[in-house]
Amino acid sequence: MSQSFDIAVVGATGTVGETIVQILEECDFPVGALNLLASAESAGHSVPFRGKNMRVREVDAFDFSKAQLVFFAAGPAITRSYSPRATAAGCAVIDLSAGLPVEQAPNLIPEINAELLASLPKPFQVACPSPSAAALALVIAPLRAVLDIKRVTVTACLAVSSQGREGVTELARQTTELLNIRPLEPKVFDRQMAFNVLAQVGTPDAEGHVALEKRLVAELRELLALPLLNVSATCIQVPVFFGDSFSVSIQTAGPVDLKAVGKLLDDAAGIELVDAGDYPTAVGDAVGQDAVYVGRLRQGIDDTAELNLWVTSDNVRKGAALNAVQVAQLLIKDVV
Amino acid sequence: MSQSFDIAVVGATGTVGETIVQILEECDFPVGALNLLASAESAGHSVPFRGKNMRVREVDAFDFSKAQLVFFAAGPAITRSYSPRATAAGCAVIDLSAGLPVEQAPNLIPEINAELLASLPKPFQVACPSPSAAALALVIAPLRAVLDIKRVTVTACLAVSSQGREGVTELARQTTELLNIRPLEPKVFDRQMAFNVLAQVGTPDAEGHVALEKRLVAELRELLALPLLNVSATCIQVPVFFGDSFSVSIQTAGPVDLKAVGKLLDDAAGIELVDAGDYPTAVGDAVGQDAVYVGRLRQGIDDTAELNLWVTSDNVRKGAALNAVQVAQLLIKDVV
Repeated sequence: MSQSFDIAVVGATGTVGETIVQILEECDFPVGALNLLASAESAGHSVPFRGKNMRVREVDAFDFSKAQLVFFAAGPAITRSYSPRATAAGCAVIDLSAGLPVEQAPNLIPEINAELLASLPKPFQVACPSPSAAALALVIAPLRAVLDIKRVTVTACLAVSSQGREGVTELARQTTELLNIRPLEPKVFDRQMAFNVLAQVGTPDAEGHVALEKRLVAELRELLALPLLNVSATCIQVPVFFGDSFSVSIQTAGPVDLKAVGKLLDDAAGIELVDAGDYPTAVGDAVGQDAVYVGRLRQGIDDTAELNLWVTSDNVRKGAALNAVQVAQLLIKDVV
Repeated sequence: MSQSFDIAVVGATGTVGETIVQILEECDFPVGALNLLASAESAGHSVPFRGKNMRVREVDAFDFSKAQLVFFAAGPAITRSYSPRATAAGCAVIDLSAGLPVEQAPNLIPEINAELLASLPKPFQVACPSPSAAALALVIAPLRAVLDIKRVTVTACLAVSSQGREGVTELARQTTELLNIRPLEPKVFDRQMAFNVLAQVGTPDAEGHVALEKRLVAELRELLALPLLNVSATCIQVPVFFGDSFSVSIQTAGPVDLKAVGKLLDDAAGIELVDAGDYPTAVGDAVGQDAVYVGRLRQGIDDTAELNLWVTSDNVRKGAALNAVQVAQLLIKDVV
């Protein structure tokens, strides 16, 4: 089959947008025309694709009838402004910005809920969940076969790249200043990020929850199809450049069969299970990898109805760009 | 009252031992003779006290009848070797090494279970819990007045100083190597610690638990006098020099009254409650401080029977040396 598809990437100069372009090339996605789009400030930059430097154009001037499939990888306001034009022009829309309501664009992870597509109207509008929800749902979804899951408690240790390139530059700058014993003036983060852990990512609401945590809880319930699942989520910012890590404790209705859990994870698509005794890390295992890594499987201390585990994932790849391209591969089978 | 007490500090050249000496000076502890002791390798070093450099002598040659109160701040094997001599000589023993069984030397945090002393035989043998248990017990203990606590789930983000001076030097060295794009050869830690998070501190047993986690669970149950409490503990190593951080989720039998919780913490000794919206960090609030800092108090998302909070503590001071000196202050009222 040699059919190809005309693609647009909105937010092409951001970390995630650039990685989408890179993965489209790596996986030989049948790209016809590739339209790289961004805000007026970023237009004019260029992004490499198949040996050429592709010029980034302004999204506002784009004629969406020239694309069949659009990735929205800029902010949610951009998605809300331009996705109606894309949909009206008949484009399939993949939203990575959480810009659209879930009723309009449900979250999709091909390994978990690919069957969802059959029930959606065309042109498709689907969303990619937050990197944290993508990693956790991928690990927890297969466990539903052997565990009656009552509660998930997670501390998500987020890399500074979750704040885009500015986060990465800022951690490097702060680290250098501190090692050279120069005074530190935090930008990007609200205080010292180097050699420190920040307990809060974003501004809390009156109840003390931040948007990122509320999004994670809602997306996990949606992706796992467990709308009443109790989820306690704390997102913290750690001085790591790339790769998120998750400390997870799952409470179940009955005893956890660790062997069965291990076998399910071993067989599950998109997951690498690390041997007992060893464990994955953001830097060592997650970064640049397509799989989500899992380790430290263990019951609770004196509690057989508890499963603890450790998860690492590349927040830019499987957490965002890779999942978006995998969704696109699913869509083009059926759609565009 | 001008009574003074002859003191011995075993492990005086370590991070905790040195801090004990420093705090004895800061708080004007009525020190008579101060005997600084260490292994043969460290003997001959000196440690400052009240404007003098005190020579560190070999523990094996020490006559314990020359002290009334001994801090054991070296490894557990050293405590097991020398504490019988100290006890036989009539010294009160404060063990910071987890070297003695809990039946022989129960854990003591003056703010929580000072009344324990009345039931102990003399000469006293008491223990200081791990820095993590000390910080968490201090925060959770007062909450028992308003919460029927069913389960505590904690991810403890430990500073590299929990591995002593070698941990601190190694994080600095690794960071410099990486920033200078030189190849990294991890020592002290089993892999890259700079810009990374390690999921496991120590070697796991057949069930996947590490000693530090088992100790934390046992000590929390003991200090809170809740022997059947479910505790899920994950200790991770983060690239922070000093100061531990804890992500804590507490499940209760009934709804959590956040106002009552806030008031209890505000009134509790040894605790600083940070205003809603703000949060404490290891670097900003814990290091060099005697208090344990608490912030991000909030219920669960859609679960009023859940209390989430964030705790930071100086792992060397309140977590270890300060608590030991506070225990000593309690003992000398009654004892030596």
